[in-house]
Amino acid sequence: MNAAKSKGIKSAKPADTALKSMAKPVNPSAKSKPAAKVPAKPALKSVKAAAKSVAKSVKPAVEAVQAMAAEALRPDKPKKMKRKAYEAEMRKLHEELVALQQWVVHKKMRVIVVFEGRDGAGKGGVIKSIMERVSPRIFRVVALPSPTEREKSQIYMQRYIQHFPAAGEIVIFDRSWYNRAGVERVMGFCTDEQAESFLKGVPLFERAMVDGGIILLKYWLEVSEDEQTKRLKDRIDDGRKIWKLSPMDLKSYSRWYDYSRARDAMFRATDNGFAPWFVANNDDVRRGRLNIISHLLAHVPHKKLPREKIKLPKRQKAHGYVEVDHDFKYIEEKF
Amino acid sequence: MNAAKSKGIKSAKPADTALKSMAKPVNPSAKSKPAAKVPAKPALKSVKAAAKSVAKSVKPAVEAVQAMAAEALRPDKPKKMKRKAYEAEMRKLHEELVALQQWVVHKKMRVIVVFEGRDGAGKGGVIKSIMERVSPRIFRVVALPSPTEREKSQIYMQRYIQHFPAAGEIVIFDRSWYNRAGVERVMGFCTDEQAESFLKGVPLFERAMVDGGIILLKYWLEVSEDEQTKRLKDRIDDGRKIWKLSPMDLKSYSRWYDYSRARDAMFRATDNGFAPWFVANNDDVRRGRLNIISHLLAHVPHKKLPREKIKLPKRQKAHGYVEVDHDFKYIEEKF
Amino acid sequence: MNAAKSKGIKSAKPADTALKSMAKPVNPSAKSKPAAKVPAKPALKSVKAAAKSVAKSVKPAVEAVQAMAAEALRPDKPKKMKRKAYEAEMRKLHEELVALQQWVVHKKMRVIVVFEGRDGAGKGGVIKSIMERVSPRIFRVVALPSPTEREKSQIYMQRYIQHFPAAGEIVIFDRSWYNRAGVERVMGFCTDEQAESFLKGVPLFERAMVDGGIILLKYWLEVSEDEQTKRLKDRIDDGRKIWKLSPMDLKSYSRWYDYSRARDAMFRATDNGFAPWFVANNDDVRRGRLNIISHLLAHVPHKKLPREKIKLPKRQKAHGYVEVDHDFKYIEEKF
Amino acid sequence: MNAAKSKGIKSAKPADTALKSMAKPVNPSAKSKPAAKVPAKPALKSVKAAAKSVAKSVKPAVEAVQAMAAEALRPDKPKKMKRKAYEAEMRKLHEELVALQQWVVHKKMRVIVVFEGRDGAGKGGVIKSIMERVSPRIFRVVALPSPTEREKSQIYMQRYIQHFPAAGEIVIFDRSWYNRAGVERVMGFCTDEQAESFLKGVPLFERAMVDGGIILLKYWLEVSEDEQTKRLKDRIDDGRKIWKLSPMDLKSYSRWYDYSRARDAMFRATDNGFAPWFVANNDDVRRGRLNIISHLLAHVPHKKLPREKIKLPKRQKAHGYVEVDHDFKYIEEKF
Repeated sequence: MNAAKSKGIKSAKPADTALKSMAKPVNPSAKSKPAAKVPAKPALKSVKAAAKSVAKSVKPAVEAVQAMAAEALRPDKPKKMKRKAYEAEMRKLHEELVALQQWVVHKKMRVIVVFEGRDGAGKGGVIKSIMERVSPRIFRVVALPSPTEREKSQIYMQRYIQHFPAAGEIVIFDRSWYNRAGVERVMGFCTDEQAESFLKGVPLFERAMVDGGIILLKYWLEVSEDEQTKRLKDRIDDGRKIWKLSPMDLKSYSRWYDYSRARDAMFRATDNGFAPWFVANNDDVRRGRLNIISHLLAHVPHKKLPREKIKLPKRQKAHGYVEVDHDFKYIEEKF
Repeated sequence: MNAAKSKGIKSAKPADTALKSMAKPVNPSAKSKPAAKVPAKPALKSVKAAAKSVAKSVKPAVEAVQAMAAEALRPDKPKKMKRKAYEAEMRKLHEELVALQQWVVHKKMRVIVVFEGRDGAGKGGVIKSIMERVSPRIFRVVALPSPTEREKSQIYMQRYIQHFPAAGEIVIFDRSWYNRAGVERVMGFCTDEQAESFLKGVPLFERAMVDGGIILLKYWLEVSEDEQTKRLKDRIDDGRKIWKLSPMDLKSYSRWYDYSRARDAMFRATDNGFAPWFVANNDDVRRGRLNIISHLLAHVPHKKLPREKIKLPKRQKAHGYVEVDHDFKYIEEKF
Repeated sequence: MNAAKSKGIKSAKPADTALKSMAKPVNPSAKSKPAAKVPAKPALKSVKAAAKSVAKSVKPAVEAVQAMAAEALRPDKPKKMKRKAYEAEMRKLHEELVALQQWVVHKKMRVIVVFEGRDGAGKGGVIKSIMERVSPRIFRVVALPSPTEREKSQIYMQRYIQHFPAAGEIVIFDRSWYNRAGVERVMGFCTDEQAESFLKGVPLFERAMVDGGIILLKYWLEVSEDEQTKRLKDRIDDGRKIWKLSPMDLKSYSRWYDYSRARDAMFRATDNGFAPWFVANNDDVRRGRLNIISHLLAHVPHKKLPREKIKLPKRQKAHGYVEVDHDFKYIEEKF
Repeated sequence: MNAAKSKGIKSAKPADTALKSMAKPVNPSAKSKPAAKVPAKPALKSVKAAAKSVAKSVKPAVEAVQAMAAEALRPDKPKKMKRKAYEAEMRKLHEELVALQQWVVHKKMRVIVVFEGRDGAGKGGVIKSIMERVSPRIFRVVALPSPTEREKSQIYMQRYIQHFPAAGEIVIFDRSWYNRAGVERVMGFCTDEQAESFLKGVPLFERAMVDGGIILLKYWLEVSEDEQTKRLKDRIDDGRKIWKLSPMDLKSYSRWYDYSRARDAMFRATDNGFAPWFVANNDDVRRGRLNIISHLLAHVPHKKLPREKIKLPKRQKAHGYVEVDHDFKYIEEKF
């Protein structure tokens, strides 16, 4: 178990708590500021400035040492998974996801998978790795945009229900109806009363889904504060990710504890026997994805369908086909 | 330029033709059969059989030699691109695709990109690599299932037109209205008259699109016979691809030349100044994808939008938040 | 109160019961059959046949007398409403429906009106008279066709929920989710278990609707056996109605009592304080429509919105407009 | 032929022109104003005012006389049709519309009927009388609301095309793509260039529809200035119609001649052999509706389908059914 996880959701294990307090100094701002402030006493502006610049120049080194120390303090923490190993494992899981897909079609099953978590928890990445090899007609991803004014005036569940699976479909919700208990509540897009009333109603609603024969899997992706910061910073710097950071994401970033409170209330109200929340630590995305897909595969009963041996047929004869004399516009082959 | 391409679509360049005739022996069936048939003359059944078995056992070696020879004969053929290099280039293109995306939104542009080609030409792969880093709300992939009976009775373009882009959208068609000129014609799902009448009407239709301000890019992915065979065999053997091979694909596979004829007729009728077809050789998928995305980026005018410097805000204080005592169901961390 | 109603649903009033027993002979099959059977005793086939034919020829006269007698026995039964009077009243109601419409828009209300009842109970007619003068964008009629295979495999309420009103809309269901408790159950399109499970779930569902701020009105249109027969016969004979009689309607016609049982179970399970069923006798359609619309208007709180005085603006000047010299194709003026 | 029509669209017949000039004085503003202005010459304010008031008080009488005179001058003008006669004729047409409906389904035909005309020309009324007795699943009315911002950015025909009929459907457009040539142009919602470019493209588009096997009928409902005024005034005064008069309608009302010019340009560009405009004078709505429906029936080839003799089946026995003891909530029977 990763220590990182314990920062997000309290673990019952005392060993973890101990580890956590040891790991605390990792936070550089906590450590480096006092150091910088000591020489400030003489109250001379120039001295202060000098001190600041010293502190600044030293900061990276200090952080690096702290990081190494933290690493050392977590002897159980597995090292980052190597790409080769990751891909080999993922390949096996992809194969099994396809087997699941064929089974779901064959047995006319209906499955809903919900992914929730803070911004940057890695929902999109997990979903992308699930979708990589399966048919988008069987696995459907639903990531609804903000509701229109019209939709806002309808009953809350309406826009989600219309995407529910028909026979032989697996619908993956990239954020779901739990928006009301999460983003909407934290950002003030709904009142606390609306959120509470929503939470009271959800179990009834999910009970009906499950009783109606839908397999419902709910995943909460947990991310530590540090990792979230790192990922959101990435969205500022990496040209491929810049569109993923909205002003609202920034606001939401600042409200870490409001979000924690919202999450706790959500678990209290909706983590139950027939529709449990499964929590996945996703600070290490490679491990996270493999673990989640493994779990998913283990929780949707399926077998491998036998396949007939397929053989490619013979090609037809050319029967006088001659290549046309057309001035094809080939694209430039730069690579 | 790859020799492989010249097998699919005749190139006008004489150098190529020369190369092609040299490369011809690559085709094992053409070369090895005569060799196998020589000892058949005595007309003795047992001798024939023996010859066959000899030919069979020799075939792989012969093929290998032929392949090496062919390779040697194409000194200009670039070797398979290394993954590292591919990924480095793709990263740059992904960054520019995102820049394009922001520009398209900013300028309220409307873009349609059509991908056509035989089964296994790699349409899906190119599209996946375009989509990997962009927003699915701006880049929308349209891959229509077979038409329902109701849709079949409507006007042909109806089901395509409803997916046309609004302002700030790029719609990618994974197979398009050209189905009628390709699959439908080859497989007999429409009459030749219907196909011809469709081809006659398309230029008018595309003219209207372009005049209406839509940027239209049409790509034809070319794949050689050998490479197609290899890829379809892969769909038989690779557990992740088994669902991609329908009985219809097999039938279509056998009709290589019918398909060539259909393609030629399509080019004749619809490759024009305002809506040209761009042909991309996709036998080497890494190079193919890079080339196509480069071409696409070069043909949708765009600039990089300036961005404001974004800074992550401060986190809020915990204000007495205490971790809850909830029995979280962590998923098993197998990896 | 009409005696006819008492045939459909038992009334608690003793006077009614008395009336009913007096009115009983109206049923011709009850009366005429014994008469016809009397001479059958000798057991001679030819006599029987003769008797049958006598009975048959006398039947119309008998029925007419019975009808007159029945009429005479119901001195309280109001006569058929005159058209002039009906139209005058309807005009007032139409005006108020428009006032309601403006109020619903103004106050962003959401209203659902459900109409249920046997075939020929007059649901369509009531709905048509509601819709006659209002905006089809505010009042929306939802009359779903039979579910597709895909829809059948989804959760039952899915196809109804997607039509639920947004702010400022009144949705009228011409048959509703209660199909499962009615037609589907009676015709064997769902199992008794499915129907029962549906009935158990509906109150929860409707509770959620009402709690969510939707005004829900449920009307059951009651029609007597005789009147239903008359109306369905009309669908056979009247060239404007022939498409309204499906083989399923005929089957359903024969199952009068199964339908009664289904209706009773439905009321038992779903006639409650927050979402009551309102029963309307609709044997006399003019009175029925007026009564139902009056009731509807009384049960959706509304006021008349004040209106500004509107004046038609002046017409622009012709400014040299001259009529064109175009060869207009006037339609023939037969009338 | 009605003289009223000649006010809207110039007729080629000379007799009509003569009649028209005689009927001209009917327009009160043209005649009465000069009369009122005569005594204004002395330039005394009070005299002017007196004259004005005299003119005003006399106006109704003058108008009445003018109206009578006009009536007398049109000896051929048929009197208003009596309701009884109208309903008897309509009943026959309704029966035939149902026959047409059955035939369209049987033959899998696709029909589009377009209704255009100024505000108050009676499009809605004609459509309502067509729909009164037919199935709304076969006859579909499409009356699109104003386009959303998203729709505005798409190609113009997109939102119309998606409503085009499938086999066995008749789609009635209550206003159509011709909006661009009419309302949009007159009200300045599109530029003259856009309108002209639209008009240039429409014939190609309609040609494709007709070639594709769709039966296309386009009706222009003509209304005279006086009748339009009367109808729009009615929308101010009649409580059932108040919602039908938008501020835009008022503006459009004032632009009578702009509308005439737009209509003329539309006819010039789109009234052709394969998709002609049929003009119907609808000043007398009863005659107008009968004439239009007759014309429609004559222009969609159909036969009466033979029907099997249907017989109502026997009712099932009660098998011990007893009326339930449920406290039914009957609605009040006010009527």
